[in-house]
Amino acid sequence: MPDRDFSQGAAYVKGRFVPLMEAAVPVTDWGFTRSDVVYDVVHVYHGGFFRLADHLDRFERAMQARHLAPPETRAQMEDILHACVGLAGLNDAYVSMMALRGRPRVRGSRRPADCDNHFMAYAAPWIDVIPPEVQARGAHVLIASVPRVPDGSVDPTVKNFQWGDLTTGLLEAHGQGFDTAVLCDAEGFLTEGPGFNVFVVKDGRVLTPDRGSLEGITRRSVLEICADLGIEATIAPIPRALLESADEVFATTTAGGVMPIARVSTGHTTHILGNDRPGPISAALREEYWRRHEAGWHLTPVRRDLAETALAR
Amino acid sequence: MPDRDFSQGAAYVKGRFVPLMEAAVPVTDWGFTRSDVVYDVVHVYHGGFFRLADHLDRFERAMQARHLAPPETRAQMEDILHACVGLAGLNDAYVSMMALRGRPRVRGSRRPADCDNHFMAYAAPWIDVIPPEVQARGAHVLIASVPRVPDGSVDPTVKNFQWGDLTTGLLEAHGQGFDTAVLCDAEGFLTEGPGFNVFVVKDGRVLTPDRGSLEGITRRSVLEICADLGIEATIAPIPRALLESADEVFATTTAGGVMPIARVSTGHTTHILGNDRPGPISAALREEYWRRHEAGWHLTPVRRDLAETALAR
Repeated sequence: MPDRDFSQGAAYVKGRFVPLMEAAVPVTDWGFTRSDVVYDVVHVYHGGFFRLADHLDRFERAMQARHLAPPETRAQMEDILHACVGLAGLNDAYVSMMALRGRPRVRGSRRPADCDNHFMAYAAPWIDVIPPEVQARGAHVLIASVPRVPDGSVDPTVKNFQWGDLTTGLLEAHGQGFDTAVLCDAEGFLTEGPGFNVFVVKDGRVLTPDRGSLEGITRRSVLEICADLGIEATIAPIPRALLESADEVFATTTAGGVMPIARVSTGHTTHILGNDRPGPISAALREEYWRRHEAGWHLTPVRRDLAETALAR
Repeated sequence: MPDRDFSQGAAYVKGRFVPLMEAAVPVTDWGFTRSDVVYDVVHVYHGGFFRLADHLDRFERAMQARHLAPPETRAQMEDILHACVGLAGLNDAYVSMMALRGRPRVRGSRRPADCDNHFMAYAAPWIDVIPPEVQARGAHVLIASVPRVPDGSVDPTVKNFQWGDLTTGLLEAHGQGFDTAVLCDAEGFLTEGPGFNVFVVKDGRVLTPDRGSLEGITRRSVLEICADLGIEATIAPIPRALLESADEVFATTTAGGVMPIARVSTGHTTHILGNDRPGPISAALREEYWRRHEAGWHLTPVRRDLAETALAR
């Protein structure tokens, strides 16, 4: 195999490793034409995957929930993720894994069971979901008018690309000058934002929604850190009014960690939190989250030798 | 340009014409990773596009609704569709057009407005959504237990690839031995199935849902044919009980036309329609739909000269 430029990222597609910019999905793959695909994203911090086993567990559950069974074993998928990071030569990375329905073996079939499912993955340089300078001042967030898709129609704990409602919220937020959006469900309970979980702090208690949300790995980390720090933290229904009267609000995501929010707006009225900057509990959780990274908490060193093996394929 | 094999279909991707099997979407395109894409499908019958202007009108409305603006003009898009069919050498074809969000110009941006939107299209040999032999006996359909995503969360009149609820219904139907599924909304009103509109016939009246559904072009054609034949036809709320007690049920779609349904089941009880075969009104509408095709109704001849121009690009 000739030397190839993996500096923009490295991908695994149908059994081959290619530069990320060459990685593509067939236009007739149901992973695209029906968004019939599940995914997960794990990050690499200073040469180590964060909570890799937890991400792989969630990814496996998602595949099972959607009857997706690519040929690679879990161990092979794990090796592929290592190889992608190694090929890209990254110390800090955003690493995506996907299982796609694929295309039917029988021409013209409309049956998911007739499709050859396949696994894809890639490692790209780290990107924050909310830019670092916005995290520093605290994000300005619109409560979008579009209701989140109900859990009964599309299970939000099965990580998927069906972002229609989230994108509508994002377009609405950007159109009004906000950094991003959060969505409530049709009953007026807080759910999540485009790519992140949401937390509310009220009277010293930390709350995160029990519905309409991914069971985020960063969310789980925050709940564990709260327990260790003696902060009461609960997964519970959060009425919109509580969000609008919160003491602090923050977002969590793999691609950004704990991200403080300084303003929450309905579009008509804007609730400015604290002194229009990250609140003390948000800041403490953020600091502790990254301190634990430095200490190697849940980190799995990237096995760079697997990149050599991958290139030899 | 060397001779290429377009016999499996021809596609237009980022300004180039390629064999369909080579057409692909970048793995980091938001059209894939956020299913941030709208599409439309028009069919070609015996060398002519059916209701091409109506499909392009709907496609334009969908792009506007999602703030998608690819560089091609409508006239250029239309020429590209002609060229795809011409390159593939097809007389009967399934022709898809798509507008994708694309990728951000600014690395790391999470703003839809920062993305380069793009237009894709392809022509492939005709495929029926429901196989012809199943249409002949009448399809066996499960009323899926999964509720359709509400219109307020994801607008079903903006044709999209977010098939999560529809795929869940399809998996449920196939698991129980049915040909396909229809979905009701959370309030128990009939919506649509995976890739088709649904019609109910009761006491000589034809009804199709007013919610949870694409405004199908075949659906519109059937409503027009009903008017011409003096059959009362209405867009209206259809409670699930009416579906379960219908005299006839049929589906409509671009990729199949009018498709009779012979059985509708809740999983527990199966309602056998008529004599377990296509009903008389369904059969008459199907016949008239194809008879009008033969007569050239709403057909635009494929301009095969555009394939030559395309190859010269």
